[in-house]
Amino acid sequence: MGKNMAIKIFVTGGTFDKEYNEINGELFFKDTHLPELLALGRSSIEVDVITLMMIDSLDMSESDREMIAENCIKTNENRILITHGTDTMVDTAQVLAEKVKDKTIILTGALIPYKFGSSDGLFNLGSALSFVQILPVGVYIAMNGRYFSWDNCRKNKKTGKFKELEED
Amino acid sequence: MGKNMAIKIFVTGGTFDKEYNEINGELFFKDTHLPELLALGRSSIEVDVITLMMIDSLDMSESDREMIAENCIKTNENRILITHGTDTMVDTAQVLAEKVKDKTIILTGALIPYKFGSSDGLFNLGSALSFVQILPVGVYIAMNGRYFSWDNCRKNKKTGKFKELEED
Amino acid sequence: MGKNMAIKIFVTGGTFDKEYNEINGELFFKDTHLPELLALGRSSIEVDVITLMMIDSLDMSESDREMIAENCIKTNENRILITHGTDTMVDTAQVLAEKVKDKTIILTGALIPYKFGSSDGLFNLGSALSFVQILPVGVYIAMNGRYFSWDNCRKNKKTGKFKELEED
Amino acid sequence: MGKNMAIKIFVTGGTFDKEYNEINGELFFKDTHLPELLALGRSSIEVDVITLMMIDSLDMSESDREMIAENCIKTNENRILITHGTDTMVDTAQVLAEKVKDKTIILTGALIPYKFGSSDGLFNLGSALSFVQILPVGVYIAMNGRYFSWDNCRKNKKTGKFKELEED
Repeated sequence: MGKNMAIKIFVTGGTFDKEYNEINGELFFKDTHLPELLALGRSSIEVDVITLMMIDSLDMSESDREMIAENCIKTNENRILITHGTDTMVDTAQVLAEKVKDKTIILTGALIPYKFGSSDGLFNLGSALSFVQILPVGVYIAMNGRYFSWDNCRKNKKTGKFKELEED
Repeated sequence: MGKNMAIKIFVTGGTFDKEYNEINGELFFKDTHLPELLALGRSSIEVDVITLMMIDSLDMSESDREMIAENCIKTNENRILITHGTDTMVDTAQVLAEKVKDKTIILTGALIPYKFGSSDGLFNLGSALSFVQILPVGVYIAMNGRYFSWDNCRKNKKTGKFKELEED
Repeated sequence: MGKNMAIKIFVTGGTFDKEYNEINGELFFKDTHLPELLALGRSSIEVDVITLMMIDSLDMSESDREMIAENCIKTNENRILITHGTDTMVDTAQVLAEKVKDKTIILTGALIPYKFGSSDGLFNLGSALSFVQILPVGVYIAMNGRYFSWDNCRKNKKTGKFKELEED
Repeated sequence: MGKNMAIKIFVTGGTFDKEYNEINGELFFKDTHLPELLALGRSSIEVDVITLMMIDSLDMSESDREMIAENCIKTNENRILITHGTDTMVDTAQVLAEKVKDKTIILTGALIPYKFGSSDGLFNLGSALSFVQILPVGVYIAMNGRYFSWDNCRKNKKTGKFKELEED
């Protein structure tokens, strides 16, 4: 890649960034762990990380999605990575596909919080950050080591894995 | 990606797979952790993992490199991921570029053994597995979230990071 | 210690053994991790681990506590370690103190699930297993590296730490 | 325990505190991880941690051992925990038993460095910190969840476990 290609990372919350509250035993959001994961991966990609919100994707409203879209439009970068809960990732991707043109946007997430030790988050981040550098303009989901066009995938609620629409 | 695109993974050892021997306090190789990492990443990419050798890349001979090249030529898959020690990764890439035509080959590795908890290995695997799906025919190195043409990179011995030749 | 001194471990659940369900994002109980923790600690203490129940200690009923007491009475071992949620640990200790005579019983737990990587569970297990070998007959709580007589401690709900009654 | 009982911790190095140098692939010592482990264990024991040296116990000289003994004599605390490499732990214990009277001294260590994720160190620290609070005056080794009189144990070089002299 061109070494000056900067990538925007928008954080919206999701399982990725959930933490365990040891006083009341509940899961909650504090700060994003993205910078920590990028350091762990010894990433030398130039990125700008902005936290837009810190919510469970089941709690994401239509106006939240529009706010994400507006941020994608306004930012100077043409390559954008969004961390997002997996449950409504496809819904947000649809809004972005309608509103944001001429940019490469990848949404990714995790099934296990990064802080819980055995997370898929670091793998997914390495994958999404790679796809966003070379895929053409469009809106994609990167999960399970694969990328999917936003309008050709769904999350299998039983396995937690993303599939193309025509796959079993 | 086409869901039927299979990827070959050749394991050669390197820091990635080193373990700590608790009896004598030395680092050593046992089995590869690649299947464990792919499971952790919830990867649904169809891969075939073959261990060619388990050695430190500083101990890799010219005949070892030719054996790797022969395996790349003989395998049916056109997309190949190779885990390799970082110290001589570029040397092996050069041999592969000379001998293997019409395939996409990505070499990756790690600075910290996977078993040591804070490894860059899972990030690098997610990254390399993504690049190998979409880069055109050629031999590349995937490290630090980036990909490099084999003939345009080197490892900075002081920082451990890969750079393009013209980068300081 | 006498090398033939066997210790009984009764598992009742608690934060110690909670896991994260990656499909629905909720915490739940599956199997106990005690054998895994003992292996990690390279323990050579002879123990017999029995799971009596797998519940959150806030859900523990009076009959659950009596069942634990009966098991403490019936078992041949005179030294018993019980893993238990911290919220009602003192309540169970009181029932045990009333019903079980002539045995050394230690209750311990954790604030962070073992599976979440940064748990206090392994430290607490090492501590409790040590105290149970040498404390005289009685019922104790082992948390925060200390031991407490069951009738002289309480959990500080704000810090999660156990204190003696007269401590602020 | 009396809540005002302070414990001295002397750090001497050993596997416990070894780290992995990602540039040259060798193990080395930087700072002790004891405060980090005590925080992880949510310990509320009053301790004073002093690093006396940071060496592999195979490199420990007779004058090193005398220096440790002098520090044990001079310190105000009567209960002392020493982290130490396991290979010559018994040799140091012998010197301490000859020179330090009227104190309870526990030596402990680890087979796997704390930084390598699957360490026995946290378990051993919880165990040693508990034994040092209640054992009578003397010099002991705490490993594998047990405590041993210094003159009645040895490390089995094949299994890495400590045994009493008469045990197989």
